[in-house]
Amino acid sequence: MTVTSIQQTEKAFFEEIKKILAYQEALNLIYWDLRTKAPAKAVEGRSQVIGTLTGEVYQLMTSEKMREYVGELLDPGVRDRLSEITVKSAEHLKKEIDRMIKIPSDEYRQFVELQAKSESVWEEAKEKRDFQLFKPYLEQLVEMTKKFIGYWGYEGHPYNTLLDQYEPGMTVEQLDTVFRQLRDGIVRLLEKIEGSNVRWNSEFLHTHFPKEKQEAFSLEILRQLGYDFAAGRLDETVHPFAIGLNGGDVRITTKYNEQDFRVAIFGTIHEAGHAIYEQNFSERLKGTPLFGGASMGIHESQSLFHENFIGRNLHFWEYNYGLLKQYAGGAFDSVSLDDFYRAINEVKPSLIRIEADELTYPLHIIIRYELEKALFTGELAVDDLPAVWNDKYEQYLGVRPEHDGHGVLQDVHWSSASFGYFPSYALGYMYAAQLKAAMLKSIPDFDRLLAKGEIAPIRKWLTEHVHQYGRLKKPLEILRDAAGEGLNASHLLNYLREKYAYIYQF
Amino acid sequence: MTVTSIQQTEKAFFEEIKKILAYQEALNLIYWDLRTKAPAKAVEGRSQVIGTLTGEVYQLMTSEKMREYVGELLDPGVRDRLSEITVKSAEHLKKEIDRMIKIPSDEYRQFVELQAKSESVWEEAKEKRDFQLFKPYLEQLVEMTKKFIGYWGYEGHPYNTLLDQYEPGMTVEQLDTVFRQLRDGIVRLLEKIEGSNVRWNSEFLHTHFPKEKQEAFSLEILRQLGYDFAAGRLDETVHPFAIGLNGGDVRITTKYNEQDFRVAIFGTIHEAGHAIYEQNFSERLKGTPLFGGASMGIHESQSLFHENFIGRNLHFWEYNYGLLKQYAGGAFDSVSLDDFYRAINEVKPSLIRIEADELTYPLHIIIRYELEKALFTGELAVDDLPAVWNDKYEQYLGVRPEHDGHGVLQDVHWSSASFGYFPSYALGYMYAAQLKAAMLKSIPDFDRLLAKGEIAPIRKWLTEHVHQYGRLKKPLEILRDAAGEGLNASHLLNYLREKYAYIYQF
Repeated sequence: MTVTSIQQTEKAFFEEIKKILAYQEALNLIYWDLRTKAPAKAVEGRSQVIGTLTGEVYQLMTSEKMREYVGELLDPGVRDRLSEITVKSAEHLKKEIDRMIKIPSDEYRQFVELQAKSESVWEEAKEKRDFQLFKPYLEQLVEMTKKFIGYWGYEGHPYNTLLDQYEPGMTVEQLDTVFRQLRDGIVRLLEKIEGSNVRWNSEFLHTHFPKEKQEAFSLEILRQLGYDFAAGRLDETVHPFAIGLNGGDVRITTKYNEQDFRVAIFGTIHEAGHAIYEQNFSERLKGTPLFGGASMGIHESQSLFHENFIGRNLHFWEYNYGLLKQYAGGAFDSVSLDDFYRAINEVKPSLIRIEADELTYPLHIIIRYELEKALFTGELAVDDLPAVWNDKYEQYLGVRPEHDGHGVLQDVHWSSASFGYFPSYALGYMYAAQLKAAMLKSIPDFDRLLAKGEIAPIRKWLTEHVHQYGRLKKPLEILRDAAGEGLNASHLLNYLREKYAYIYQF
Repeated sequence: MTVTSIQQTEKAFFEEIKKILAYQEALNLIYWDLRTKAPAKAVEGRSQVIGTLTGEVYQLMTSEKMREYVGELLDPGVRDRLSEITVKSAEHLKKEIDRMIKIPSDEYRQFVELQAKSESVWEEAKEKRDFQLFKPYLEQLVEMTKKFIGYWGYEGHPYNTLLDQYEPGMTVEQLDTVFRQLRDGIVRLLEKIEGSNVRWNSEFLHTHFPKEKQEAFSLEILRQLGYDFAAGRLDETVHPFAIGLNGGDVRITTKYNEQDFRVAIFGTIHEAGHAIYEQNFSERLKGTPLFGGASMGIHESQSLFHENFIGRNLHFWEYNYGLLKQYAGGAFDSVSLDDFYRAINEVKPSLIRIEADELTYPLHIIIRYELEKALFTGELAVDDLPAVWNDKYEQYLGVRPEHDGHGVLQDVHWSSASFGYFPSYALGYMYAAQLKAAMLKSIPDFDRLLAKGEIAPIRKWLTEHVHQYGRLKKPLEILRDAAGEGLNASHLLNYLREKYAYIYQF
């Protein structure tokens, strides 16, 4: 190809990308609006709009034209003459297109319809605590996903290709190692905590805390964290989330419980972590498919870094506890900082993932990972899921669900066939601990900064080592460059051990 | 064409329409969001999305494919075999496409750029009260519009084709007659009012009225009017508007002035009139281009019917004044209903259109109409606008702007070359009065219903005779079918004469 024709292809490629990004931005606004502002009767018509725009994105991604552009740009004689951004953009597209076109379009349509139906059946099943209702749908979802695995192909373990959708480059081989280490380490810590005599009264956490005051306090904290309100906003929803429309518009939502302020405060900090990531992608990635999170795990590393390593840190509260007391209107005036800190970090094995404490959370994830893996090797049938689920909860956490609503039916993920997604949560947690350990080398006074309310240097470190790259680096590349190592569960275990040894005095 | 191939064309035609409607719905959500919720930094990226989606709509409308479908469906041998909805949908598209394709695409691009620039220059000029700044832009906008008139062609008067964009079927010939009658009638009424000795103190209108209370009262009134909150919502903006995303989602906004509650109350009722229109299009028009307002004038007839014929009616306040007093926290307790009614209907010739009272409002419109018409016949040059503007204000209203910021620069319309739009406001007012007169024949106890807070029968009449048809009927068809006559200024004049004779006792 001549230089001119390469430039033309590059230009045409990014023109198509621009359209795709425009549709995705419109779709994201629609999703945000549906969950925050849209009136009930909007939904029916809006669903058709979603259908049309999603269809257009599919068409644009898989068009002859796009496949030609990608092919030309990745041609060995051409790619060396292109910028890193163009090459990686084309590679990103190629990967997505390959996944899409390998699935026959009638099967894909069938799958999308099945997802939609399954989600509403799951809701009913959860409500009624009746796994049998959901079972036939889950069986079909697993079957279709198995077929898709066949179309996509895989290396090593069939679950690898599922993982790769959410965490490029992650494999069962790597996860088995770190998850075993993590699981055993956490279970040992749990035993120590259960053996500890330290107990306290944390009733005060449930003091009535008016929603407006919680909101005002949350806004203060968001400003402190460096969430840019000129490029975002905070709203209220049943299920909190963060969503990036463009780099100048990354919105978050939260949920208020007037009998438990932790829901809003830690939820807001968590979503702010996601949002601050997206507010700080490099400008030079704008208009390319690399302007996005590197993976679900890296995304979660940012939310969990904020929620746990900042928000549940003693020194963060050293600075903010006085403020919280003011907003709470004197409710915590008789509670010492230390008692407060212990209370918000109490460990209590429980049945529900999204209500889990910092220590036991990874066990919830590891259980799901083990079950999913077994489903796709065929070692486990859908029919056996509830019993095995309950056994694992008893084994790892020492609690057993009384019904499937609090067990196998609790999460929405499987109803949309998002198999391979769960590990991201625990991966993100490990990544976060690894980043924290690396950060301490250049910011040894991390705790002192928090105690002074100076979070900017911490945020800047994260932007420099993680945020700015968007999808320009793969997850494990980010980790290697920032932390100088591969996936490693030790940092998280060290952090947890140190933290709970202090709290539970063992 | 065979029956099968006609059906195929019809299906393919509506598939294309579905896409266009989806893009338009997404665009409308973007506009709503930009004016109500979006953070400042969202704008740059969002503008590109608007550009992309607007471009796609243009492509879809003017594609070879679409033109073929429209041509086939409107073929004399075919159209007779189609439903009314299909034929009128194709006709609607044909008209829009014809307008679009007659303008060379490079000139259109140039025009769009000029519009964007002109709007920001206009803002600055208005701010600085400096017409000279805006003049060269306005000259270009007029010149390009003249060229477009040449491309489009016209019958009778060149201004007719501009009118037709907003009010299909309306002509200078018709407007000249009714506007002259209206102008003379209003000027005579103004003289009577100025000769009247009835004056009163309306200072109480400026009592402090907290925003939250105004909002709560507005919501009460909206419910009374039958605005469906399951298909809409109320937000706050600098410039109030109504926007229909789909039939189940028609949103309105309002503005609060704590020193003048009338801004929010009457503004909300006005926008509710627009919204109730769009909430009541017939279901059978869904998915077609006929699911929209018949014209700007018909749209305005619904907002003005609500604002003036309901909201400024003595009996409406007979029912609601007690409620207002409650929300106002006793501020109006010493003001009688009659004094209140007189105060909110005070006539005071003024310089600013959007602040005008019910009587003098049409004069503001007629001035703009006379000027626009003269611009396009060449009788008037842009350079002469400010002086002629001021002269006409002095002649019709007895007031003269001290600077162009309060004169020729006050409205945004010309900066986007929306020539032909202004008459809709006065047309809507006349339509509303004609509809009211017709309605009285089947609802003679109109005032008594208002006095009981029973607005449903009134709304239902409007739905039956206006709302449901969307674009299935042309404006003058709606008028003829509902009121049994053509455009007629007498009803509005009668209404105004009766109302002000009571208030000013002449």
